[in-house]
This record gives sequence, C-alpha cells and structure tokens, in this order.
Amino acid sequence: MKNITLLGATGSIGRQTLDVLREHSNQFRLYAIAFGRNVEKAQEIINEFHPRKVVVQDEKIRQALDIHNSHTSVLVGKEALEEISADSETDVLVNAVMGSIGLEATLAAIKTRKQIAIANKETLVTAGHLVMEAAAKYGVDLLPVDSEHSAIFQALNGEAHHDINRIILTASGGSFRDKTREELKSVTVADALNHPNWSMGDKITIDSASMMNKGLEVIEAHWLFDIPYDKIDVIQHKESIIHSMVEYADTSVIAQLGTPDMRVPIQYALTYPDRLSLPISKKLDLIEISTLHFSKMDLKRFPCLDFAYQAGKQGGSMPTVLNAANEVAVDLFLREKITFLEIEKVIENALINHTIIPNPDLETINGIDQEIRRQILKSYR
Amino acid sequence: MKNITLLGATGSIGRQTLDVLREHSNQFRLYAIAFGRNVEKAQEIINEFHPRKVVVQDEKIRQALDIHNSHTSVLVGKEALEEISADSETDVLVNAVMGSIGLEATLAAIKTRKQIAIANKETLVTAGHLVMEAAAKYGVDLLPVDSEHSAIFQALNGEAHHDINRIILTASGGSFRDKTREELKSVTVADALNHPNWSMGDKITIDSASMMNKGLEVIEAHWLFDIPYDKIDVIQHKESIIHSMVEYADTSVIAQLGTPDMRVPIQYALTYPDRLSLPISKKLDLIEISTLHFSKMDLKRFPCLDFAYQAGKQGGSMPTVLNAANEVAVDLFLREKITFLEIEKVIENALINHTIIPNPDLETINGIDQEIRRQILKSYR
Repeated sequence: MKNITLLGATGSIGRQTLDVLREHSNQFRLYAIAFGRNVEKAQEIINEFHPRKVVVQDEKIRQALDIHNSHTSVLVGKEALEEISADSETDVLVNAVMGSIGLEATLAAIKTRKQIAIANKETLVTAGHLVMEAAAKYGVDLLPVDSEHSAIFQALNGEAHHDINRIILTASGGSFRDKTREELKSVTVADALNHPNWSMGDKITIDSASMMNKGLEVIEAHWLFDIPYDKIDVIQHKESIIHSMVEYADTSVIAQLGTPDMRVPIQYALTYPDRLSLPISKKLDLIEISTLHFSKMDLKRFPCLDFAYQAGKQGGSMPTVLNAANEVAVDLFLREKITFLEIEKVIENALINHTIIPNPDLETINGIDQEIRRQILKSYR
Repeated sequence: MKNITLLGATGSIGRQTLDVLREHSNQFRLYAIAFGRNVEKAQEIINEFHPRKVVVQDEKIRQALDIHNSHTSVLVGKEALEEISADSETDVLVNAVMGSIGLEATLAAIKTRKQIAIANKETLVTAGHLVMEAAAKYGVDLLPVDSEHSAIFQALNGEAHHDINRIILTASGGSFRDKTREELKSVTVADALNHPNWSMGDKITIDSASMMNKGLEVIEAHWLFDIPYDKIDVIQHKESIIHSMVEYADTSVIAQLGTPDMRVPIQYALTYPDRLSLPISKKLDLIEISTLHFSKMDLKRFPCLDFAYQAGKQGGSMPTVLNAANEVAVDLFLREKITFLEIEKVIENALINHTIIPNPDLETINGIDQEIRRQILKSYR
C-alpha cells in the first residue's frame, strides 16, 4: 500500500488521479491533499477518501470545510505544501498544481527521496537546473505525468541514453490548429477552451491553443531527459494517438500510443516500473481510428513555440521569464483583459526586455518570477 | 570484436547482414558462411570478407569455388551447417537460411550457448516447442530478425511479461492487397514478386502475397514471446512504418517504427542490448510520409492466415504440416506448376488429411516434413 500526497487535488489532473486511486484502492491510499479554491469539490474528496492531511491557502477556506472526523487535520499556507510533500508518511508525491508555485514542494519531496509524479511542468520550466541537480544529488526519479513525457519515458525503457538520436514530441495543434493568424484575431475564450482531443484544465488548454504548452514541454523534455534542444523536434499529429517518440542511433523509433486519456500516464507514474490494468480507459482501436496524420510544425504560425525554443537555448533566467509572462498573459486572456494574440505580444515583450541572469538560484528565480508578473499586471490594470 | 557465422549468406537477409558488417568492420568479423547455389555471389563474399569457413551443399559447388588463400577452408554437407553453428570461434549465429533446413543448426547453436539472430522463421514454425525448450534449458536468447518480431522485442524492452495484454502484428498486405479473390485467379509469378514496401527473397515475397508470411509470423510470435494465439492480433497497415506493437495491461501501446529496411532489425540482433548508428539506413520522416493507414485483416480474403491460426492453436504436428505444405506449394508456384490460388488449396488439403501427432520429437517432425513434401510433389509431377 502506497500513501499518495496529491497537490492540486481538485484540478483536472487531480481528479483523474483520484479515478486511478479509486480503481486500485487496495494499492494506493490518499494520504494528503492540497487544493486551491474549489471548496465544494475538495469537500467531496475529503468525504470520499478521508485523507489524513488537507492543505488550504487561507483561514477562510479552512473554515468553509466541514471536517467531521477526528483523523483529518487541516493545514494552512504555502509552507504546508512543502510539509506534506516531505511528510515521512508520504510515499508518492503527485504534484499537479498549476504554475511555478509547485517548485518548493517538488524540491522538498526530492530532498526526502519520495517517488515523484510530476504534472507541474512549470516547475521544470522555471527552475529545471535546480530541480534536476537536486534529483541527481538525492538519486530521485522524476516520473512524468504529461502524456508526451510519459510516452518518451516509456519509449526509453531498457535503452541507453547515449543511443538516443532525437526526441519527437507530437502536438495535436490545439483548439485553433485549422485557423489562420487572421482568424485568430477574433477568437474568444470559449473557442480557445474547446480542445479537440484532451480533457484538461483551462490554463493548459489555452497553452495548447497558443502552442506554448508544446514549448513548455520542449523545455521540460530537455531537463527530464537531459537532451539538447537541437535534438528535440515537434511534429503536428492531430489525432493525439502517438503520444511521442524517441529515435535511436540505428534509425529505429520507439513510440507510445493510446487513446487520449491522462489517467494512463498518471497511473504509470504511480506504478512504475510495473503496470496495472485500467478498465476505465478505452483500449486503442487503430482499425476504428483508421488514419493517423503528421505534418510540419510551423513556427511562424505558432510563435510561442519559437519563443520557448529560444528561451530554452538561451537558458539562465529566460525560461523563468517565459513561464511567468505566459502564466500572467493566459490569466489576463481568461479574464478577457487581452485578446488571444496579445498573449504572444506580452510574452515577447517580457523576453525582449529581460537581461539574462546565468544560473539563477531559487531566490533569484522567485524574484524574477514576481517582478515579471508585477510589471505585466501593471500595464493591464 | 564478435565473430559472426552467417547461414544463407547469398540470400536477401544474408546480403543485408553483410551490409551491416561492412558498416562496423571494427566490431564484427565474418567468421563462417553457408550458402545454397549462388556460387558467383558466394565467391564475391569470400573475396571481400575472407571467412575462415565456408559450407557448401555438395562437392560440385566446392569445386566451383576459387579459394586462393590458405586460411579459408571449405566444408561440405548438412552436418557442416551444425558444425560451424556450434564452432567455438562463433560468437553470433545469424540463421538466414530459408525453410526448415535451418532447424538443426539453430539447435546446435543453442546447445553451445551462442547469441542467435534468427531470420529463419520456419525453424520456429515447424518445431517451436523443441527450440524454445532448448533455449530455456541453455539460457539462450533468440534475437528475432523479422522486422515485426524485432519491433515486438524492442517494444518489450524493460517491461514485464505479465503486463502484456496483446501483441499486434502489422501486415502490409503484400503485392496483392488491393486485388479481389476473383482477380487473384489470373496473377502471375512476376506480379507476386513485386512487393510494395520490402525488398526480400522470392519465397517470403510470395508468402507475403498469400498472407502466409503473417501466419508464420503469428506462430513465430507465439513461440518467441510465449503468448497465446488469442492474444496475437494482425492488422493491415499498408505503409509498413509501424513494424508491430505491444499493448499492455494499462491500455498503453508501445510500437517500433522506421523506414522499411531489414538492416535495422538485423543490426539490432547483432548489437542487442546496445545500438549502433546505421548511416546507410534512411531516417523515418513522418512529415514526408504524412499519413498512416490501418484496417481490419480479412481472414476470408486471406485464408492462409486463418490456416496458420488454426494450425498454431491445434499445435502438435500441425504447424510442421502447414510449413512443409507451404514451402512445396510456393516452390511449385514459382516454377509455374500451380496457380497462385492453388497454393491455398495444397496447404488446406495437407492440413485436412493430416492426423495430428501431439508433442512430436525432432525425428517425427523431420519424418512428417519429408512425407508431406513427397505426397504433394507426387500429385504435381
């Protein structure tokens, strides 16, 4: 029996993690959760799973919860995120919070040598060098939950790192893959949230539409798999059936395929290196699907992907700027303060105006992250 | 430096094996070869690679060879095949002879614990239980050279056998995939030899057209990977890019992809578990290929595949009968003694008229093999 600590329990990845735990209640126990603002959903989870610890953001949310069993305790504040991640009872940390707020919790779990299922890609984008350095130091595996990175992780099974020729990330193209840039001028938030293949949270769905999600994944792949950027390619594959691929020295390509269902990579991160059955997930039927399509990714059509490659290659503090600017821009778009195409503009400006700081430490990263957010928000007040 | 002994050196797999050795002459040395009737090609190979031992079928072929170096010796006869396979200087046996004649050589190599690259699928079809029993007893891995089985072997890397849900073999459909059964009545040998994707020998190209090749592969997969027949599926995939797949318990599917080029699986069997670069092979370009198609395999359209499933499930001596009847029928077709559709008829009659012998030993298998050939040839004299 493994004790699971789940950060971001009420979000899309959080809920799908709970689906997996529900399927295998004889193997996994929900030990602790953290959530943001969705008190109603959190209450349901507490009533069903009876976690021992619940972390909330503030006193007000704590009081909104109705805890009527003595063995669940409620903790308040960001430090409590680190506390439950490093808790001696935690076996596996599932970090599914959105944004760079997940960073310290990941570091805390690394230092206490937990198995870590990482769905919080912003952690790796903003501070990949610190996270991977710590993971190497403490001998901890970071098990990716992103479908693309889980695919690569599976395609690397039993293979030698020096045999990797390149990584090929597939991209569905997101909600707007068939729209021209002219048409993008007038798209709405509702249009952007309508992803063709995947059921995901709002922020990642917008990131998919702008292709920034793939950009963040390129940086994530760079860190997780220790691969230079010029060996990471992105191709468009609109069916999202091949989740990603690895090409080896002998031209052989290993791919992981499946019906788009996040519960598969989530479960794999919990059971690795073993697998378990997952009857709630639909088996892949290639005969029914009949055709898989592939096409070139156009960096002019999707400049956010280009920004990410550039920021990644420049390194230092640039990915932190990329990520912070994107988080704020997406939030502004969701609140209808800026248009869809202005997301790109906000990010591009932040990158242009930033003077790179090489090898930033955690304090520097947090400082830049806050400063970028403050500057952008100031302009759109 | 590994010493390679290559049976079937002048055939299609043999020549492509030599391409690989030529690429990596610092890693592999051609130690011994055996060939059939192609003296001219064999002479070229001897002049280029200077193998220490050459096995020929008879005295006449020995005399046709021009050996003008003292360190190459020529051996004659079937026993010499076993001798070079078990030779203490042999590190890797590449068994690329065509037909069940390769069986004793494989067994001899197993008993002397060689690394065995097996392209000779008839060996496993006709006597899979004996070969796998011996391989288990001597702790020898059989490394598949067939592109489909190499794909499965690669997709199994780092995975547990109990997590396998099913194996999915892909089939291009062969030369006649777009023809109706009515149209098949009048096809010629030249038509049948024109395979759309793969460059292979005559026998396997005819087997591809009749779909018997996929049937033999189903039986081969059953033995190589210890998987029951109801967990081996075949789907049509006309581009031959996904070479085969494994579906796991969690619905995840791992596939191996590549440009159709037998030198990739051949090299993998020589380098396993490592890989080497292979500049002579074209890298997979999915953007150029653009579309992959999948469709249901129709057992009524391709009865040979159905015969193979049935013979495999019945077990005992049935696969031996299937293979012997097919070898003779293909030979009769290539010599224009029977029509393409009569291949099926010859095999079906042989299977119907055979009384199954459970768990046959080597002598029984050889007896049945010869008897089936004799009976069929008698009818078509």
